[in-house]
Amino acid sequence: MHITPEVQRLIDQALSEDQAFSDPTTDALIPPDLRGTGIIRAKARGVLAGVDLGLAVFSRVDPSLETRALLEDGSPLSPGDAAALVEGSASAILRAERPALNFIQRLSGIATDTSRYVGVVRGLRARIVDTRKTVPGLRYLEKYAVRAGGGANHRMNLADGILIKDNHIAAGRSRGVTLRETVERAVARAPHTIKVEVEVTNLEELEEVLDAGAHVILLDNMSPEEMSRAVKLVDGRAVLEASGGIDMETVRAVAETGVDLISVGALTHSPTALDLSLDLEFSQT
Amino acid sequence: MHITPEVQRLIDQALSEDQAFSDPTTDALIPPDLRGTGIIRAKARGVLAGVDLGLAVFSRVDPSLETRALLEDGSPLSPGDAAALVEGSASAILRAERPALNFIQRLSGIATDTSRYVGVVRGLRARIVDTRKTVPGLRYLEKYAVRAGGGANHRMNLADGILIKDNHIAAGRSRGVTLRETVERAVARAPHTIKVEVEVTNLEELEEVLDAGAHVILLDNMSPEEMSRAVKLVDGRAVLEASGGIDMETVRAVAETGVDLISVGALTHSPTALDLSLDLEFSQT
Amino acid sequence: MHITPEVQRLIDQALSEDQAFSDPTTDALIPPDLRGTGIIRAKARGVLAGVDLGLAVFSRVDPSLETRALLEDGSPLSPGDAAALVEGSASAILRAERPALNFIQRLSGIATDTSRYVGVVRGLRARIVDTRKTVPGLRYLEKYAVRAGGGANHRMNLADGILIKDNHIAAGRSRGVTLRETVERAVARAPHTIKVEVEVTNLEELEEVLDAGAHVILLDNMSPEEMSRAVKLVDGRAVLEASGGIDMETVRAVAETGVDLISVGALTHSPTALDLSLDLEFSQT
Amino acid sequence: MHITPEVQRLIDQALSEDQAFSDPTTDALIPPDLRGTGIIRAKARGVLAGVDLGLAVFSRVDPSLETRALLEDGSPLSPGDAAALVEGSASAILRAERPALNFIQRLSGIATDTSRYVGVVRGLRARIVDTRKTVPGLRYLEKYAVRAGGGANHRMNLADGILIKDNHIAAGRSRGVTLRETVERAVARAPHTIKVEVEVTNLEELEEVLDAGAHVILLDNMSPEEMSRAVKLVDGRAVLEASGGIDMETVRAVAETGVDLISVGALTHSPTALDLSLDLEFSQT
Amino acid sequence: MHITPEVQRLIDQALSEDQAFSDPTTDALIPPDLRGTGIIRAKARGVLAGVDLGLAVFSRVDPSLETRALLEDGSPLSPGDAAALVEGSASAILRAERPALNFIQRLSGIATDTSRYVGVVRGLRARIVDTRKTVPGLRYLEKYAVRAGGGANHRMNLADGILIKDNHIAAGRSRGVTLRETVERAVARAPHTIKVEVEVTNLEELEEVLDAGAHVILLDNMSPEEMSRAVKLVDGRAVLEASGGIDMETVRAVAETGVDLISVGALTHSPTALDLSLDLEFSQT
Amino acid sequence: MHITPEVQRLIDQALSEDQAFSDPTTDALIPPDLRGTGIIRAKARGVLAGVDLGLAVFSRVDPSLETRALLEDGSPLSPGDAAALVEGSASAILRAERPALNFIQRLSGIATDTSRYVGVVRGLRARIVDTRKTVPGLRYLEKYAVRAGGGANHRMNLADGILIKDNHIAAGRSRGVTLRETVERAVARAPHTIKVEVEVTNLEELEEVLDAGAHVILLDNMSPEEMSRAVKLVDGRAVLEASGGIDMETVRAVAETGVDLISVGALTHSPTALDLSLDLEFSQT
Repeated sequence: MHITPEVQRLIDQALSEDQAFSDPTTDALIPPDLRGTGIIRAKARGVLAGVDLGLAVFSRVDPSLETRALLEDGSPLSPGDAAALVEGSASAILRAERPALNFIQRLSGIATDTSRYVGVVRGLRARIVDTRKTVPGLRYLEKYAVRAGGGANHRMNLADGILIKDNHIAAGRSRGVTLRETVERAVARAPHTIKVEVEVTNLEELEEVLDAGAHVILLDNMSPEEMSRAVKLVDGRAVLEASGGIDMETVRAVAETGVDLISVGALTHSPTALDLSLDLEFSQT
Repeated sequence: MHITPEVQRLIDQALSEDQAFSDPTTDALIPPDLRGTGIIRAKARGVLAGVDLGLAVFSRVDPSLETRALLEDGSPLSPGDAAALVEGSASAILRAERPALNFIQRLSGIATDTSRYVGVVRGLRARIVDTRKTVPGLRYLEKYAVRAGGGANHRMNLADGILIKDNHIAAGRSRGVTLRETVERAVARAPHTIKVEVEVTNLEELEEVLDAGAHVILLDNMSPEEMSRAVKLVDGRAVLEASGGIDMETVRAVAETGVDLISVGALTHSPTALDLSLDLEFSQT
Repeated sequence: MHITPEVQRLIDQALSEDQAFSDPTTDALIPPDLRGTGIIRAKARGVLAGVDLGLAVFSRVDPSLETRALLEDGSPLSPGDAAALVEGSASAILRAERPALNFIQRLSGIATDTSRYVGVVRGLRARIVDTRKTVPGLRYLEKYAVRAGGGANHRMNLADGILIKDNHIAAGRSRGVTLRETVERAVARAPHTIKVEVEVTNLEELEEVLDAGAHVILLDNMSPEEMSRAVKLVDGRAVLEASGGIDMETVRAVAETGVDLISVGALTHSPTALDLSLDLEFSQT
Repeated sequence: MHITPEVQRLIDQALSEDQAFSDPTTDALIPPDLRGTGIIRAKARGVLAGVDLGLAVFSRVDPSLETRALLEDGSPLSPGDAAALVEGSASAILRAERPALNFIQRLSGIATDTSRYVGVVRGLRARIVDTRKTVPGLRYLEKYAVRAGGGANHRMNLADGILIKDNHIAAGRSRGVTLRETVERAVARAPHTIKVEVEVTNLEELEEVLDAGAHVILLDNMSPEEMSRAVKLVDGRAVLEASGGIDMETVRAVAETGVDLISVGALTHSPTALDLSLDLEFSQT
Repeated sequence: MHITPEVQRLIDQALSEDQAFSDPTTDALIPPDLRGTGIIRAKARGVLAGVDLGLAVFSRVDPSLETRALLEDGSPLSPGDAAALVEGSASAILRAERPALNFIQRLSGIATDTSRYVGVVRGLRARIVDTRKTVPGLRYLEKYAVRAGGGANHRMNLADGILIKDNHIAAGRSRGVTLRETVERAVARAPHTIKVEVEVTNLEELEEVLDAGAHVILLDNMSPEEMSRAVKLVDGRAVLEASGGIDMETVRAVAETGVDLISVGALTHSPTALDLSLDLEFSQT
Repeated sequence: MHITPEVQRLIDQALSEDQAFSDPTTDALIPPDLRGTGIIRAKARGVLAGVDLGLAVFSRVDPSLETRALLEDGSPLSPGDAAALVEGSASAILRAERPALNFIQRLSGIATDTSRYVGVVRGLRARIVDTRKTVPGLRYLEKYAVRAGGGANHRMNLADGILIKDNHIAAGRSRGVTLRETVERAVARAPHTIKVEVEVTNLEELEEVLDAGAHVILLDNMSPEEMSRAVKLVDGRAVLEASGGIDMETVRAVAETGVDLISVGALTHSPTALDLSLDLEFSQT
């Protein structure tokens, strides 16, 4: 994982909002020369993501801390598994603990949820993809965590793909532009390096947009039966994405229709944080 | 809700990571003079939070957009309820939509979850409080959402309260300092404007820290029975906080023990985003 | 043109590096109550771009200045043409003048150069496109200016398109991966919303990458004859981009081969700034 | 060259706008353990500038890359000359390549153009100086490149010198203040560490401002004959700067008049980028 | 002392406003290979504070400089004492000198003034504390210097303590809310980790707020006699802070009343900078 | 006074470090609809500076506050004088109060001290000037305050003037370069818009640097008698600046020697903050 300048800024924000350098508890109780060895351990089953990011938080608080990932992002975790180690000033470790864990817990939560979806559709064609429903400021980290969990990424942002949704189509219709014309315009005007995806709600629309040149078609809230028909009808002429309220109960049935992609907003908008803790041993210098 | 300089920076980050100003879909399909009226509506039951923040995203994309909150933060929402209105350039509304909704959905999710806990303990003494397990960068917003949902805030950051946890106590013990001495030191060295809270795991520790002058005592992972005994034993001489794996199933029983505060990490580390949508109507100028 | 938060930061940098608020010349000579009316005029033929940006510089120095674009970006300019007007505190206008003109002169220079290329290939299929050879920090503004001049944009950044260049191909070959395999891998691993473009230097490579599924093919430094053969061979199965040392002398011949796109690095790496001046009239309040 | 905090921010902006850390081409094709050795080579004659800056871009993407300048800024370049070397992760080198080259190509272009002007006036008194017509945000870098090319710098910004131009003089005249009075005021009010330069368009004005105490006089758009007379008339009592539309054709004649300084806006507003490339060799670890 | 990200930003601002990297004096006179050894020495009696911060300024200008604190913050200084050493490029040392000294001189000035107050009350119960009257942007550094001088900190900011002052009380009274009710409200609504302090001007108010549950009481501008009575009256039931125009003449008498805290605004709003100089020896490489 | 982007950032830092938006005192006690009218009043004699800056702090906390300066910067103040007015949300006024006053108190303190020095030398030639001994981050504001107090500014930063000090001279001597040669080099290499000032400690050095072309000469720690001789000796051929430990006792005698400038470091390194308060009246809406 790249600790980019933007990610570094995010770490600084996290330390700033937690006032990591104004910690009266540590000031009162932890002698400056006390050293500690901390192990970040899983307290639940899941998939690790963000371990380097968490360790970068410790290093930012005190560059003299020694940090080492014991597992790589994407590794499965069982309760008690040691994911990373940090060694050095106990005071620095304690100041960094919460922001570091907050990063790893959220990203690992996303990776864990993603891996569950991926596991359920294993053996089928469909890839599990995310959406743009991410926590503001963490988009790139959260999409990284989806990959760590075995998923794939949909658009990173508005710029790297055209996606014509209901509101774009309605905007055309309000001015007498048909769905077909809307798609044709987008295909004609799209930058030559990106594709055009269109949201449809039934098979008539599907045929219309396919004819108009859509490269990817999003099947919005269709039943598995309708999706199966869509897969047959398209027959490889476009990529098909299933979307809309798909959860762990329904995802297998959706995948069995033969669609290429299944997008799940909950992966990033409502993940369950993975429970982790920092076990700390102390030693005097 | 104050749109502080820090919050404004967060909005800018959200727009930047979504490349709101490089939107080839809108560029290709939405004429600059097309106007729209958007209504942000609930699609599920919940409690609203962050509506001004979401509207500030729209205004940041285009200051000429007219925005108006139709409900205040803290209002209950039913499916179909209109929370806010935005009017003006359709292109600007579409660019801002996702980041705006991402903010409101997360904050309203936190407010909704909080209000459920608050509802369950209604009539009892206990207040529901949050923790520092928040998404990095959103600490102040998420704690605001807890308040919008009827909860109260625990420490905002390391600086506004002393909280002696297992690792601080263990650091003392590793050097021969008893729990009592640790608490006494903290009380003596604490800034005079903040209180000292101590985590205990049993009643012996409770008595020890009470004697040592702790103002607030955190009962970590105790059974309701043990907590009831703690409440009697303390008899108002300190504030008591219950903590550790408390969920919707167990929170009522915990509250019935008579504790003052119940902290729930899941409020901020694993909220379920509230489902909201933007309904958009178009009109030509 | 959107004055985005990023663009606003760029304006601030420009004012800061010019020390616009520490101007001893103006401090010594211009009374605070002296008012002026400034007209930004062309001193050469060209195409306007960045007029709103330039005016935003004036407004940033003094929000009470009245500013008005008299022509839109993309408008042709002849010497003497008035592009914009600014009115108010003479001192503020003088502090902002140079940074404001620096922005408009560079962007209009790019638009002007672009429009010359576009003019030469008029009537033919080929579109003139830019490259990523932009001045660091001004990428989005410079690509905007290309559009203002009638050109189109190639990739905005590394993320919105796959472009396999000589070094990527060589990286594969160094490990025994053939060109075809490299392209197939990229097609298989590409995000589903972006296309795969491949650079080729001869017709054998062209056939290989076409077979492997390339959506766009960059013809690197080919002669017009070779390009004509490439166009026939591909016959619409992929988009063809001509690239490499194409200038005003050769661009018409290249366009006549029937390629879809002609990329010209010089549009942004070596534009000639358009000569503009600020004519200022004074009046006492 | 100092990589100052401001320059570091510029590097971060360049990497951010190019999304250097979201590169699907590299992600798809370059294995993480592939190593490379890159040589930055000239493809045209010129003068090198900005080599440390370019290398700093590589180091920012991956601090473990080894970088080494093979030539110093100011060195003459012939096609094929190796200017710098970078070694390490091939993926990191490819992500950084374009922004790094963009910096070096622009600065070397400026140094190259400057050195041509300097060469033409060699042996004469006149120094070639730049102006404030620089690309917003790059002022200090571009002025550094002028020095690397053998030129000297005019004002870095509004604060480090008084320069009374036509608009300042007109502002005085609009209120009945004569040119002489304007200059006298500026001399009286100038901070004691900076000089007063005045723009004149003819010899009468020249005598007036010389009398009034101007330290430096800018001869605006005068013919070489007039400038020669100005040099004789001033006879060392002030520094003389020639300015206004001077190009490679006319600069020698201007220098032969005996002026001290010749300012050339085109050095920074319209340089031709120097053509450079990165030759990359790969090796597996 | 932690050189936190915020402190690093402050260092960057200091270097930027001093244009440390555009130093024509050094450029003209100091050869790049000239090395120097600088010693920061006291020129007056006082207490050192901020030595690591000053050294961080040197390192920011040139990371290859070797820096070493010779004394720790809090050390007493006599004229001639060497506080720190910096070695390496003479040019870099000279660019950093002024901003580095500016930091150390201000912080040491605060530490020195604080230590004088602390010395005068030695042996008595009272601790000398600061206020929020700090130079904007330097709050945390200045409060650190107070600690280095032997003082203690009052609130770091508005968030880490409730302090009810005259205006808050008047706001209540304007709506018919008594002082007692105001304090009771604050006690009831305060976050559970912080205390409530109330400003009083006489003993009646003192009794009222003590009854209402105030944890800390600020005695505003009371005479020593009145304060003595207050101490007796309160008898340990609340912490007492003396405040209001206390100076070196009066502080001993105030301390002898038995108050717990004496706050002195002048420590941070009007410290006398400690005189320090950089002695530099040169050596050629 | 210009509220520049940099000054705006400083305001944001001040609000952030004071946590102006997390104020539990105001949250607990001030109803959102309570309105107030605040008057900023002097509590001591002095000179006002920074009133617009202070008001900008209020506006940043709440743009709907009405603010109005009642006196201009530079105005004399007596105890009780009203300097500014702010009206609107009482809660917003209270959050902004301390940072706003901190700015005005420091700047007015500098203006007040400056005006005292200026008053003492009234009628004589000498101007009182400041130094670069300013609080990091506030350089431009503090130099503005010196002007408000009737003083003039020395260099704003390293870039706008050459000042050869003892260390630069010693650096030359360490390599066999004489003082004369050092000054000649600086004169030859100085940018043509700035002057060369040299520090001397006796009359021999004075003659040497005058001969070498110094434009300004700093008389370092000379006695008034020696300075008088220096003034005669120089006889208008250079600007003379007296410097070194000059205070209110000695400044008149120094001015009477006939020097042009007297620099006083204490103006900015050790000003006494001017005592101001905010008187607040409340009214319900």
